[in-house]
Amino acid sequence: MTFPLGFRYASTYAGIRKVAKDDLALIVSDVPANASATFTTNRVQAAPVKLAQKHLRDSRGKLRAILVNAGNANCATRTGDTVALETSRAAATILKAPLNQILPASTGVIGVELDARKITKALPELVSKLSPDRFGDVAEAIMTTDTVPKVASAEVSTGGRVVRIAGMTKGAGMIHPMMATTLAFVMTDAMIPVDFLKPMLSVGCEFSYNRLSVDGDCSTNDTLTLMANGASGVALSESSRKLFQDVLNRVLQELAARIAKDGEGARKRVTIKVSGAKTHADAASIARAIANSPLVKTAIAGSDPNWGRILCAAGYAGVEFDPSKVEISLQGIVVCKDGLAARFSEAALKKKLDGKECLIDFRIGGKGKGAARFWTCDLTEDYIKINASYRT
Amino acid sequence: MTFPLGFRYASTYAGIRKVAKDDLALIVSDVPANASATFTTNRVQAAPVKLAQKHLRDSRGKLRAILVNAGNANCATRTGDTVALETSRAAATILKAPLNQILPASTGVIGVELDARKITKALPELVSKLSPDRFGDVAEAIMTTDTVPKVASAEVSTGGRVVRIAGMTKGAGMIHPMMATTLAFVMTDAMIPVDFLKPMLSVGCEFSYNRLSVDGDCSTNDTLTLMANGASGVALSESSRKLFQDVLNRVLQELAARIAKDGEGARKRVTIKVSGAKTHADAASIARAIANSPLVKTAIAGSDPNWGRILCAAGYAGVEFDPSKVEISLQGIVVCKDGLAARFSEAALKKKLDGKECLIDFRIGGKGKGAARFWTCDLTEDYIKINASYRT
Repeated sequence: MTFPLGFRYASTYAGIRKVAKDDLALIVSDVPANASATFTTNRVQAAPVKLAQKHLRDSRGKLRAILVNAGNANCATRTGDTVALETSRAAATILKAPLNQILPASTGVIGVELDARKITKALPELVSKLSPDRFGDVAEAIMTTDTVPKVASAEVSTGGRVVRIAGMTKGAGMIHPMMATTLAFVMTDAMIPVDFLKPMLSVGCEFSYNRLSVDGDCSTNDTLTLMANGASGVALSESSRKLFQDVLNRVLQELAARIAKDGEGARKRVTIKVSGAKTHADAASIARAIANSPLVKTAIAGSDPNWGRILCAAGYAGVEFDPSKVEISLQGIVVCKDGLAARFSEAALKKKLDGKECLIDFRIGGKGKGAARFWTCDLTEDYIKINASYRT
Repeated sequence: MTFPLGFRYASTYAGIRKVAKDDLALIVSDVPANASATFTTNRVQAAPVKLAQKHLRDSRGKLRAILVNAGNANCATRTGDTVALETSRAAATILKAPLNQILPASTGVIGVELDARKITKALPELVSKLSPDRFGDVAEAIMTTDTVPKVASAEVSTGGRVVRIAGMTKGAGMIHPMMATTLAFVMTDAMIPVDFLKPMLSVGCEFSYNRLSVDGDCSTNDTLTLMANGASGVALSESSRKLFQDVLNRVLQELAARIAKDGEGARKRVTIKVSGAKTHADAASIARAIANSPLVKTAIAGSDPNWGRILCAAGYAGVEFDPSKVEISLQGIVVCKDGLAARFSEAALKKKLDGKECLIDFRIGGKGKGAARFWTCDLTEDYIKINASYRT
């Protein structure tokens, strides 16, 4: 891991979740960072999501800190707006920052009142613990049903100098590829004007979080932020911005792929590649339909090379294609050619499918240049008892 | 059960599925029946689905018989079209009917060649067994992962005379409310012109099969037929057509609801009622989102009155509504009022949710008259170990 300069982190247990595991965290930039964020598209939005959007508007994309809690979504509660505001204000006061430079975020159960005092009481200790080394603590504190923390980082060299990107994220349910899914906080010490950050995040998100599905549920609290505090002293030139975008995409993709790997109940990560579609959007639609199909996901869980289910899912993606030109590979082995069964050793492929990584490659014959990559996971157990032990 | 006059049924084991359980069936009308059918909207369509559509067009909606097999979908195979055509032709010959009055249907695994000879060889025995009493045998023969056969029937009185409706259907996976889902064959002895049958089936389907979801997968083989052979000698007057439509809707709803009850792995049937939306279509969209949410379905499996997940699913239905006016009831008990937690005994409600039937009532406050009813089932086991034991 590499860490951007000028950021500090802390976490503590504020008594929000029942188990005594850190549930409150702070990410602070030493100076106001330029920031952009994308939020849930759900019509039901948690109080912190609404306040975070307001703050980013009011501060014109300046952020000093992210205040995040796990164990309670602060959504659909009587006191939600007040709690988000009061806790943000308390953080602003103690950090000597403008209120609108604090971004609140919450994850956890919906519809249960969140006690603001638990957070305000814990703030002094939290601030006293702030350190550049506690990045990993925060990544752990934001976990809910996640089994492992999820982080990724990279360096970008530009004109002989280096800028750093580091991100953390959490899954592992209510994951749907309609927007910035779940919580993700990405920091960089590059100097990037706000006007550039927004399209950068939007492009990065499109090819990472918008290509991720665990269970098709789109949460009320999803928040993905990108903060650039310029602490490296390196401004990105126009040419280096393209390189930075590529590296940012890779970091975001790694975070998204880690969520897929840690999907609730998952034993396998599934990567879906679609190519030969008319447009990238068409390819993404087909990949999404395959990723969301419980029958495909249970077949993968059962290591069953049941390509008919993959072809079937593609068929209801709402995209025009000629089924008789489709080629499907699993783990690099062609299982369907020209829309029909290919010859392959089922026993050998079954064995390959027992691994922890599964690759579905869906190619539409023809001249289409549309391609997409998508991540999901298998769907395990009882549903499988039926769907993986028989072919239906 | 009541059975329409002038129909005969038979089933046999043709060796298509591995277990020795009837897998081939025939439904025959003594005279050519007026018929309408709706088929899968999947871009990948099985050979019998394509041929069935052609036959109905060519015969202008006349049907003598349905030839149906389970254990093989006859989809995405080299010989699919030939197999569908040859087996239909063999049935036409033995029944002395025009080829285009035979409707082929298949259900089972995709991508495995179906041997036409198994069917043609079994046809003479099948025809010799035809009897008005073997309706139930056919309902059993079309089962795949279904645990019980699914039938429903009703009588309609008109002008002192009676006509009968009886239907059979099969589930239990690849069930998605985009169209006539799965296989369903409905017969009536009323005299109904073809021109009336089509809208009748379309309306009936909209409020039954299009309101049903098990796993969100839309199959390649779905076929829903309605045959009216007029054997009762009773023509429906304009006024009795409305009554007939109501009864037909009820029969179709009963069939659809039976599929929900027997959903793969399901322990509970879930009925979702949405009211107060701007339009019926809006209400149906909200109901569909709730029905398709794995998090709602696992909460129900765990008897967890986690109404936040229901509100959340409604929020991503793509329909405008004010979350602060929503009231949600589970088993008749209000759990969410004005978008916030209502007071209720969680222990008492948990007990009520342990039953085999679960009712979710989602009311949008205001003057909207849009309402919908939807059926689904719970999602059981491993996914639950995480989603039902914790609140996330």
